[in-house]
Amino acid sequence: MASVRIREAKEGDCGDILRLIRELAEFENLSHQVKISEEGPCLVGYGIYCFIYSTWKGRTIYLEDIYVMPEYRGQGIGSKIIKKVAEVALDKGCSQFRLAVLDWNQRAMDLYKALGAQDLTEAEGWHFFCFEGEATRKLAGK
Amino acid sequence: MASVRIREAKEGDCGDILRLIRELAEFENLSHQVKISEEGPCLVGYGIYCFIYSTWKGRTIYLEDIYVMPEYRGQGIGSKIIKKVAEVALDKGCSQFRLAVLDWNQRAMDLYKALGAQDLTEAEGWHFFCFEGEATRKLAGK
Repeated sequence: MASVRIREAKEGDCGDILRLIRELAEFENLSHQVKISEEGPCLVGYGIYCFIYSTWKGRTIYLEDIYVMPEYRGQGIGSKIIKKVAEVALDKGCSQFRLAVLDWNQRAMDLYKALGAQDLTEAEGWHFFCFEGEATRKLAGK
Repeated sequence: MASVRIREAKEGDCGDILRLIRELAEFENLSHQVKISEEGPCLVGYGIYCFIYSTWKGRTIYLEDIYVMPEYRGQGIGSKIIKKVAEVALDKGCSQFRLAVLDWNQRAMDLYKALGAQDLTEAEGWHFFCFEGEATRKLAGK
């Protein structure tokens, strides 16, 4: 495989990241949910993370999305991105590292488990709930 | 029911919030996972939220936990806390409001659905994955 470098995103990457986000949406059959627009040129994968708070464990890192272009899969790039996020987690004082995966994406689930993750939906019964925009506005009485 | 006020937490609430966190852990049968200590005196419920990022929808609010003491349940306090979080979400420019719930907590699931939330684990197959401390350190090679 060609040499791949895992690095933090920089401003000039925006166009490329948008392209990958659209590819991810297609892969997840959720293209209709994408609300962004713009064009641009060449990264082969990305991970988007943010910091959340676990009531019992404190500062936690949350990997919102990870994506690798189809022609670059099977080369360990996804694992490298995940390892990089784990490094950031420890650097920032997070012991816990959470992420979400679609249950039909067996390849991703197998990878995360092989890397040491636990499926908390399976093990403890956690379900994701979401209020979309209209429901949020209704809730807030706006 | 006695009059209940939904308000932002302040510094002096810490002891009380810790007490509620421990009660929540007992309710969820996850007391062994609580890593905090300290004592204190009188709130009857809380919600802990933080801000995350949805790749497709942008700024999003995430309700990490919500808890109401057993003797105060059935009075609409949980709904009021959720509505307050929805107000904060809109004030901060978040259209999406996410939370997680244990699948055996039917009362909570029914409430969230009645308020307009969608169960994304059921509808789209999202599973929660987590690397705990040891797994995170192993991933990062530390």
